[in-house]
Amino acid sequence: TLQHIFKEIFKAALELQEDDHRKALLVSRKKKKENTIVDVKGEKIGDGSQYFVVGPCAVESYEQVAAVAEAAKKQGLKLLRGGAFKPRTSPYDFQGLGIEGLKILKRIADEFDMAVISEIVSPQDIDVALDYIDVIQIGARNMQNFELLKAAGSVRKPVLLKRGLSATLSEFMNAAEYIISRGNDQIILCERGIRTYERATRNTLDITAVPILKQETHLPVLVDVTHSTGRKDLLIPAAKAALAIGADGIMAEVHPDPEVALSDSAQQMNIEQFNQFISELRPLAKVNA
Amino acid sequence: TLQHIFKEIFKAALELQEDDHRKALLVSRKKKKENTIVDVKGEKIGDGSQYFVVGPCAVESYEQVAAVAEAAKKQGLKLLRGGAFKPRTSPYDFQGLGIEGLKILKRIADEFDMAVISEIVSPQDIDVALDYIDVIQIGARNMQNFELLKAAGSVRKPVLLKRGLSATLSEFMNAAEYIISRGNDQIILCERGIRTYERATRNTLDITAVPILKQETHLPVLVDVTHSTGRKDLLIPAAKAALAIGADGIMAEVHPDPEVALSDSAQQMNIEQFNQFISELRPLAKVNA
Amino acid sequence: TLQHIFKEIFKAALELQEDDHRKALLVSRKKKKENTIVDVKGEKIGDGSQYFVVGPCAVESYEQVAAVAEAAKKQGLKLLRGGAFKPRTSPYDFQGLGIEGLKILKRIADEFDMAVISEIVSPQDIDVALDYIDVIQIGARNMQNFELLKAAGSVRKPVLLKRGLSATLSEFMNAAEYIISRGNDQIILCERGIRTYERATRNTLDITAVPILKQETHLPVLVDVTHSTGRKDLLIPAAKAALAIGADGIMAEVHPDPEVALSDSAQQMNIEQFNQFISELRPLAKVNA
Amino acid sequence: TLQHIFKEIFKAALELQEDDHRKALLVSRKKKKENTIVDVKGEKIGDGSQYFVVGPCAVESYEQVAAVAEAAKKQGLKLLRGGAFKPRTSPYDFQGLGIEGLKILKRIADEFDMAVISEIVSPQDIDVALDYIDVIQIGARNMQNFELLKAAGSVRKPVLLKRGLSATLSEFMNAAEYIISRGNDQIILCERGIRTYERATRNTLDITAVPILKQETHLPVLVDVTHSTGRKDLLIPAAKAALAIGADGIMAEVHPDPEVALSDSAQQMNIEQFNQFISELRPLAKVNA
Repeated sequence: TLQHIFKEIFKAALELQEDDHRKALLVSRKKKKENTIVDVKGEKIGDGSQYFVVGPCAVESYEQVAAVAEAAKKQGLKLLRGGAFKPRTSPYDFQGLGIEGLKILKRIADEFDMAVISEIVSPQDIDVALDYIDVIQIGARNMQNFELLKAAGSVRKPVLLKRGLSATLSEFMNAAEYIISRGNDQIILCERGIRTYERATRNTLDITAVPILKQETHLPVLVDVTHSTGRKDLLIPAAKAALAIGADGIMAEVHPDPEVALSDSAQQMNIEQFNQFISELRPLAKVNA
Repeated sequence: TLQHIFKEIFKAALELQEDDHRKALLVSRKKKKENTIVDVKGEKIGDGSQYFVVGPCAVESYEQVAAVAEAAKKQGLKLLRGGAFKPRTSPYDFQGLGIEGLKILKRIADEFDMAVISEIVSPQDIDVALDYIDVIQIGARNMQNFELLKAAGSVRKPVLLKRGLSATLSEFMNAAEYIISRGNDQIILCERGIRTYERATRNTLDITAVPILKQETHLPVLVDVTHSTGRKDLLIPAAKAALAIGADGIMAEVHPDPEVALSDSAQQMNIEQFNQFISELRPLAKVNA
Repeated sequence: TLQHIFKEIFKAALELQEDDHRKALLVSRKKKKENTIVDVKGEKIGDGSQYFVVGPCAVESYEQVAAVAEAAKKQGLKLLRGGAFKPRTSPYDFQGLGIEGLKILKRIADEFDMAVISEIVSPQDIDVALDYIDVIQIGARNMQNFELLKAAGSVRKPVLLKRGLSATLSEFMNAAEYIISRGNDQIILCERGIRTYERATRNTLDITAVPILKQETHLPVLVDVTHSTGRKDLLIPAAKAALAIGADGIMAEVHPDPEVALSDSAQQMNIEQFNQFISELRPLAKVNA
Repeated sequence: TLQHIFKEIFKAALELQEDDHRKALLVSRKKKKENTIVDVKGEKIGDGSQYFVVGPCAVESYEQVAAVAEAAKKQGLKLLRGGAFKPRTSPYDFQGLGIEGLKILKRIADEFDMAVISEIVSPQDIDVALDYIDVIQIGARNMQNFELLKAAGSVRKPVLLKRGLSATLSEFMNAAEYIISRGNDQIILCERGIRTYERATRNTLDITAVPILKQETHLPVLVDVTHSTGRKDLLIPAAKAALAIGADGIMAEVHPDPEVALSDSAQQMNIEQFNQFISELRPLAKVNA
């Protein structure tokens, strides 16, 4: 019938349009078929292996970070995270050690031959960060801080971009586009849970975001199991799901003494729990050899 | 300090209260430590093996269901789903074949020696269903249809209870409690995605619901990958995540000719896709031997 | 340019389609231009006046309902609500007095010459309800209990249909369509807040649902300020907004002694608060004379 | 009973704690009972009168803004909004005229003797903005851009802070606390709709946020009817609700020729619609005389 034909034309038109739009993005797999591999001090994120990125929520002292670095190193890991600038809901919460924190991270990176990842929250700190850290993290609350994205796009340093608290995947990809369109294609995406009505977990891990992002973009995708669940008892299960669905890596928070942590004390693993975490998950992680 | 002591007391009190409340539920693992195993014609759901439940969205004809049953049988599966009563958003959409559909399912079950699962939508149909099907499904839209839950609790037939579109896990467990409190403990829970702001998928698969439900209750938990994603390209990745995180089984929709399906045509697999689905996933499924 | 023309055609096509679809619904204003007026014992809901519907969450005793009825009557109100069948999250919570509750409501209606509204939760109780109550309420949890909707559509008694906890407006209108398509056009819609991530209120009152529903359907629309806010301190402000935006009426819960109420004790007004509520709001309510 | 007493203590403790926490905030009404009045070129926002703030989404040219300013002036309005820095989802969308836009706004403000409000998106632009605009707007996407909040707190210029896309009211108040804790108490809050599952409107206007914010803080609260609804046909109804519930003012977008607007073309009013808007709403707005 005529109506049917009309609907088909309509559908085709709709798909064409959407197709066109996505094709335009530089992060799109339509623009570049092969996976982008982000080289972080020799760790080739996106190469098919599945990596672990661990570390304390916030850098509190050299000793604290060193304890985690040592444990991570023993487990053969090379990627360390730690917050120097902490975006906190309340102005009265611990805001991080700032540049001092970056210096501690740098010292750790040198002494342990590891790569460090740390969040930068202000465009003017991007340049400063170049001297201290190996990966610039842009946090969930800043995913649409477009000035920060532009600044991160203008340097030649890998960027770990976290999905916003209630960002759609389309918005997430467009945020990455802000970075790549300025010339920096060393971008790692990170799913960290979205805000929903459910309160059994801190956020709701949107696990199928991983295959969607892998399919629609050429960028590597990590899963932050700490922020997505907010529960220590769910870190291992969530990580298993993330590895199985094809994430390029897992992020998790580790603190030598979570009870006294200055932030996120309830959800960080201690060293023993971390060792357990790795020993359960490593056999499940793909190794591209 | 005094304030600190006070806070500790406060916290302890809070935990005690919550603890007490959960302990009271019959579905709680605090009430019963061992896993409940639901025996469906010899398939022991909850026994540690991971099962597949497949079938068309709606029963349309004997031939249609038989085609799926045959394919499922060849793959060694024994659990078949198919809707006879279809709760549809619009009154003008296909509402299912009703009792006629149940009869088709019964005939298929007998001929192929399979077990059939079908949704019942009205308390007065629960008794009728006993003669035709092996598992009574209560759908997402009826998760808080308490009269239906009570009716399902009053019979001795396994019940597959789907999580409501925007039900919290606490509400979900309380819905199961309606059934068990009437004496029927043969309950299978099913995570099928929740409603969020994100539209890349039909719903957002709440993957960590699986370990939470397994931990807080003694009931088996399935994951419906069709309704949670609404996208054929995500069925295999979602199922991998569900198997890895410890689901007791996977539900998925299969139709011999999805293009002409009377409902959910976009998201059902055809037989070839189904064979691909099983061959990719079976090696990942645990078998309790 | 060609592309522009193409887009225009595309847009027009999209609008045509959507238009067509909505036109098809019997609840649509495209099908019937004039407002539907639901006559409840002489109160003509939808006639331009703004009505108040008050009463206890649950019917607990004759005395309890009579106390509210008396206060309402004194304020010149004629519409009384009260739950006899209570859908509760937990099976161990008070489930209502059932038929006994309906009988109490009937007695009150007769003695005070008021009209009573009560929720029915099971299709087989619809017929029973005809003898006792003036308006059949279908609650939020049953908005997509299609068997119940069909049963309510088959009788000739006004129906008050509440929006589901996370129902889209489109689903809400389709739920009403289930009723009207069976021949019963005496439908009152009720916005009662939707489930969101925000917890400052029990639900989030979707205030613009009112003008949307008034524009897209010909049915009267009430706003339940009690369930949408869950906070006594917000009942008056929410009701002011609802009156200003053009709701056909306001629903609110009143209990002679909320502290001892068997359900919703925190959010029901006592008689004094109710009198305050009415005296602040009545001057703002439109009266169609 | 013992249990009851225990629960009471527990509850009291909980309330005490929450109370304490809120009391600590400088934005809290517990800290300051009287309304904060923000004086913007003589318009005293928060004084009990209800103000209108209108203007184009983005500053495109002197002529465009002048056309709106002239119309607003004729209606007796004094507060003009217009975006010079536009945070846009895609990097390929119009990003605003930047400083050039601020200069246009300044010229308009001088010529028409109006006050201008414009969004600043980067901490380093805060100082620049002081020379050109009367109110610094911090947009929804930057509500938790804490560096920007700190910068805005360090100057002596009124700040209009919009609620984040999925910010809780508690997060919103804490964001304001970042500003006030740096010494700037000239803060205007703005509810602009939250992200929910519903798509009938661009966002869901959380209307009861207004009385909650007015009750918990001493700051004035505006409602942005354009962004909360995203629909021209809902601007007047939404504004009526906002005025009725006690908002200190209404924000809305006006463009001399919305069809050719470089952003938000679908939701801006033209001059004629704006005149209609004001003539319907002005009689409803409170005037503190």
